[in-house]
Amino acid sequence: MSDKNATRKWRQMFQIQEDAQVSYSSFRPDSTPGLDSKEEGLALLNKNTAQINDLQERLYAEGKQALLVVLQAMDTGGKDGTIRAVFGPLSPLGVRVTNFKAPCGRELTQDYLWRVHLAVPGKGEIGIFNRSHYEDVLIARVRELAPKDVIKQRYRQINDFEAYLSENNIRIIKFHLCISKEEQRERLLSRLQTSEKNWKFSHGDLAERALWNDYEDAYEQVFRHCSSVIAPWYVIPANKKWYRNAVVSQIVLETLQDMKPQFPAAPADLDQVVID
Amino acid sequence: MSDKNATRKWRQMFQIQEDAQVSYSSFRPDSTPGLDSKEEGLALLNKNTAQINDLQERLYAEGKQALLVVLQAMDTGGKDGTIRAVFGPLSPLGVRVTNFKAPCGRELTQDYLWRVHLAVPGKGEIGIFNRSHYEDVLIARVRELAPKDVIKQRYRQINDFEAYLSENNIRIIKFHLCISKEEQRERLLSRLQTSEKNWKFSHGDLAERALWNDYEDAYEQVFRHCSSVIAPWYVIPANKKWYRNAVVSQIVLETLQDMKPQFPAAPADLDQVVID
Repeated sequence: MSDKNATRKWRQMFQIQEDAQVSYSSFRPDSTPGLDSKEEGLALLNKNTAQINDLQERLYAEGKQALLVVLQAMDTGGKDGTIRAVFGPLSPLGVRVTNFKAPCGRELTQDYLWRVHLAVPGKGEIGIFNRSHYEDVLIARVRELAPKDVIKQRYRQINDFEAYLSENNIRIIKFHLCISKEEQRERLLSRLQTSEKNWKFSHGDLAERALWNDYEDAYEQVFRHCSSVIAPWYVIPANKKWYRNAVVSQIVLETLQDMKPQFPAAPADLDQVVID
Repeated sequence: MSDKNATRKWRQMFQIQEDAQVSYSSFRPDSTPGLDSKEEGLALLNKNTAQINDLQERLYAEGKQALLVVLQAMDTGGKDGTIRAVFGPLSPLGVRVTNFKAPCGRELTQDYLWRVHLAVPGKGEIGIFNRSHYEDVLIARVRELAPKDVIKQRYRQINDFEAYLSENNIRIIKFHLCISKEEQRERLLSRLQTSEKNWKFSHGDLAERALWNDYEDAYEQVFRHCSSVIAPWYVIPANKKWYRNAVVSQIVLETLQDMKPQFPAAPADLDQVVID
């Protein structure tokens, strides 16, 4: 599973092509292409983690480029779990997670990309967006928080913004963790029935769930307008957590490999140094 | 001088048209078109200030749009003096000045527009940039802090950024306070000879002065690539401080008038309110 051809095929399999008109119903959230069992998935995740760890250290030492990982999903889609599983094992020194909740305070008086730009990773960092500027074309579209023509303008604004980041050595990958509506039902029930998960349940989740089809439409628009070679969307089958984690780690790994981070040159004459 | 036709003619006179190839040598920093004396200039500034004050209060109360004023000039060009004269009389409640000095600390690890976006005015505010992102295509070009193709890319990135801001209700006007090289000599001498001004003198100023022609070239590129209807550059003759202040205030005033800020509707039934 881990040979180069197989993994390349994976990225291709999940990447939304530029200007592609994808139908949300074509996604298979329950599928696990390329991996036959949970054991195989965990093994791949473990193997990838060691390599990601190594590459992250180089990225940090190099201090010349950054990786921005955008995570979007329907409620219960598994963003928190993915962050814990894939990025938890890394040193937090160079990894920064930003949660984008409903804007509040000064965020409300500023332009919508203000808080997003503020959180963009610096050189040497991996930045993880737990939700992102895409909320401004997802919930904003579904809940009509902005007029249609404003939403349309935002697709271009977001593309311009991501092009700018990319040209400034910030590599962008965007994941949609794709679960089925049935799977969401199971996970919401589990939040109701498990006391340790109760805190994650919000009555608002049901209102959003009722708008499932509208969110599917909004995601289709996002994929159509805002996936590109420089900032691709990957739609990951995410009903099976082990599969989701393995594939996200795989794509993060391949992206970091593409970035080829290098340790800086050693200071001169290290062999002359005497430490008394 | 203050009738509408005259002032419209002024804006037109100083605005760089989109894609125009202007030659820096065509500017007349010593001229004072439209105003015949210092007294006339001070009278206009005073008159404008009262109106700007009124409009700023409306802008703040309305809380729906912002004004961003970019100030760029050669050293000693008069940015600080303009800020004091034109914006000093306003309430600092809704006016925020940001000084962009050489980037340091975290600014250096972030993309170059990061600190700029962070400082963009919120709704209801007037933001003043004392230097700006244009340093990244001015000194960066002259001092070769970035490769030529990167500088070229930045013109487009800046245009995209400003288009985004403009579409998000942030009106942008950009002033180049244009002094002659002779005038700079006088002002630098005055900084050397006046003890209260000594602190403003830096030996680095002379090194920059030696690159005067390169800065002229860099400004010509900026005016050619980054002046547009939505974010125009105004080149203001600035050898005479009274003239510079009057014209900047005039253009700020006209811009605010264009923006038509309105007090929000009063709460209902104010006439029923009893205060005991």
